[in-house]
Amino acid sequence: MNDEFVPQWIVERKRDGAALAEADIREWIARYADGRLPDYQMAALAMAIYFRGMSPEETLALTDAMMRSGDTLSWDDLSRPTADKHSTGGIGDKLSIPLAPLVASCGVAVPMISGRGLGITGGTLDKLESIPGYDTHLDNARFRAVVDAVGCSIIGQTDRLAPADRKLYALRDVTGTVPSIPLITASILSKKLAEGAATLVFDVKCGAGAFMKTPADARALADSLLAVARGAGRHAEALVTAMDQPVGETAGNALEIAESVDLLRGAGPADALELALRLAVPMLTLSGVSPDEASARALLEKRLASGAALETFAQMVAAQGGDARVAESPETVLPQAPVLLDVAAPRAGHLARVDADGIGRAVLLLGGGRRAVTDAIDPAVGVSRLRKVGERIEKGEPLATLHARTRAEAEALVPQVLGAFSFSDEPVAAPALVL
Amino acid sequence: MNDEFVPQWIVERKRDGAALAEADIREWIARYADGRLPDYQMAALAMAIYFRGMSPEETLALTDAMMRSGDTLSWDDLSRPTADKHSTGGIGDKLSIPLAPLVASCGVAVPMISGRGLGITGGTLDKLESIPGYDTHLDNARFRAVVDAVGCSIIGQTDRLAPADRKLYALRDVTGTVPSIPLITASILSKKLAEGAATLVFDVKCGAGAFMKTPADARALADSLLAVARGAGRHAEALVTAMDQPVGETAGNALEIAESVDLLRGAGPADALELALRLAVPMLTLSGVSPDEASARALLEKRLASGAALETFAQMVAAQGGDARVAESPETVLPQAPVLLDVAAPRAGHLARVDADGIGRAVLLLGGGRRAVTDAIDPAVGVSRLRKVGERIEKGEPLATLHARTRAEAEALVPQVLGAFSFSDEPVAAPALVL
Repeated sequence: MNDEFVPQWIVERKRDGAALAEADIREWIARYADGRLPDYQMAALAMAIYFRGMSPEETLALTDAMMRSGDTLSWDDLSRPTADKHSTGGIGDKLSIPLAPLVASCGVAVPMISGRGLGITGGTLDKLESIPGYDTHLDNARFRAVVDAVGCSIIGQTDRLAPADRKLYALRDVTGTVPSIPLITASILSKKLAEGAATLVFDVKCGAGAFMKTPADARALADSLLAVARGAGRHAEALVTAMDQPVGETAGNALEIAESVDLLRGAGPADALELALRLAVPMLTLSGVSPDEASARALLEKRLASGAALETFAQMVAAQGGDARVAESPETVLPQAPVLLDVAAPRAGHLARVDADGIGRAVLLLGGGRRAVTDAIDPAVGVSRLRKVGERIEKGEPLATLHARTRAEAEALVPQVLGAFSFSDEPVAAPALVL
Repeated sequence: MNDEFVPQWIVERKRDGAALAEADIREWIARYADGRLPDYQMAALAMAIYFRGMSPEETLALTDAMMRSGDTLSWDDLSRPTADKHSTGGIGDKLSIPLAPLVASCGVAVPMISGRGLGITGGTLDKLESIPGYDTHLDNARFRAVVDAVGCSIIGQTDRLAPADRKLYALRDVTGTVPSIPLITASILSKKLAEGAATLVFDVKCGAGAFMKTPADARALADSLLAVARGAGRHAEALVTAMDQPVGETAGNALEIAESVDLLRGAGPADALELALRLAVPMLTLSGVSPDEASARALLEKRLASGAALETFAQMVAAQGGDARVAESPETVLPQAPVLLDVAAPRAGHLARVDADGIGRAVLLLGGGRRAVTDAIDPAVGVSRLRKVGERIEKGEPLATLHARTRAEAEALVPQVLGAFSFSDEPVAAPALVL
């Protein structure tokens, strides 16, 4: 009886806490991907996995089966090593955009497939599309050509990349089975492994503005991602980083591109720059381009200072049809919101908390995010000049600047934005970036 | 946001261990019954309920909502009180058949809606249909007329009785969500409450041959059934009874009808007769027909001795189109298997165990059960003259008689049947019936 494939027996095995056989996981996903296995059995198994978890071996088998449901890319013919970064997502997290050209300028190719924003979390693709002409829909041949010529390319996911993940993700979203570490791992890595980069660096966000609220949860996800990525033969490193306040000083699509240009000049907010460097270092060391952290960091700083990183960004934008002058004067190329409104501090004090969720919600309400996947977004709106936790603020100083379509919309959101800031009478230390 | 009905939020609430609101449960089942809520969300919720359970209040709301998905019967216009019994099912458990006319002969109407057998567990309907002409498909009007005229009727479930349960049961079967006490409770009681009897007595089987393997599980199901039945305004009592060896001395459809006739004569195997009386007593006392157990038992024994119980059975059979002579000479009316084969004891000793599952499997393999709901069954085959745990056996004495279609089929099953019997050199006490 045991070599028959009976879906409910597999559900029962997981429900009762047993590990699933690799062959059963492969057969399950193959049938789910082509529609022979119905959504209701997948939903039941997903909920059983939520409660019972999966071993690293099971998670690897699930990830691999989902990866093989679609196209897989290979970069073996490239003369350079390949690396990519994945972030679990946070408010103001534009780091993919400076990171790809920065790392590419050091001799590591970065073929990056990114996603769109949903809810209060922005998406790298939406940010890039605020650059006039930038095309995120490259086919495999053109993607390869841009990576080959420039060293990096950032594009959107195609229907042929891990289609089982696309189907399962939509199902998890409506069946209460999103927050499961093995399912999250398989979702992230089925796409990232299909993308083919030899080195993967994970930025697992942790805190009030992240999916993982506690360091223990974030570490568990990081461990799971590393076990599966390494089990699949990739070099991998993970950082658990703070996501309580937004990353950098902007949130909103075009505003984050402008900030990315600042970062590529070696300027920009200290927290975002430091985080970019911390993520870039293992991409170089694991790729064998730099022998150790110190030399990797030195090389990265050199590429920022020389303008090489910014130049690679300009080349990538141009190769994907975008207006490359964005690298020189983002303010003239990027869309600008008609109304700018400073939000003044209601009191003096030390900034104790800037609630990333609250800022993300403000951007959404300004029109810069999506409530449903079909919503259009306004690239120009958002929040800039965000003050950071630990700063000393005087009463009436600006805490942030709102970029809005109308004065009424801006004014209506002032209480929302003010509500995101908390003050202390005592000095507050700037929070750690990497936990 | 909380008064919007968003199915995944409800799944998440249960997943996270919260109790669901009655209104949400009602809306959920109403939408599931009419197809607005997809199977995959129902499967996810069922698995979350498997892991998190439900309070008695939630289970009552679920049961009531499922009951209201179809027709509900009322017996208020009947001059007699109404009662019914539900057994969770076991091998050789024919007790519904003698119980309904026995209790009816004491002045309590028994409108009983029963099921078919699946796997190794027999079904009351299949057993009754071994009586030539017996019709289990009565419409509501005729069901009512038979109950009114005779005092009892045993029919099959219609499509209009708790259709939400029918749909959910089929889904649970293929999603690993069968063994959940609140879901089992709602499944049983949505039908039993719709049937409308004022008093319900539950026979919760416990042991190797039952769905509930441990007394703790059986007690939990009994408690859940009682809480919901009483919460729905019914009189209710539950017995947890042993299901390690088969009930009585026969297993197989026609053979169990013949044994039922014996029981209605006050004869038949002692364990089956005692169990019938133990289940009948609360049906009389809770209905107010007998003031206490002793007088209930005396009345029941009087009806058996006088032939009134058997006469009621004959009337029910006749009213449903069956050959009522079955009550006088079952052996001439019921189908007989062509081959009878005694299984001889391989040694002397005291019977220590008779494995109900093993005997049930033998009946299935003889052709007396279904592997799939669409299978046809042979009413004549089965096992009779089963010896009981605690009996002293001499070597070569028959342990059971196989009733088969061919000698080859009978002989092939001898090892299967022998494997169900275990012996002890020491005397073994007859096991307790009621735990």
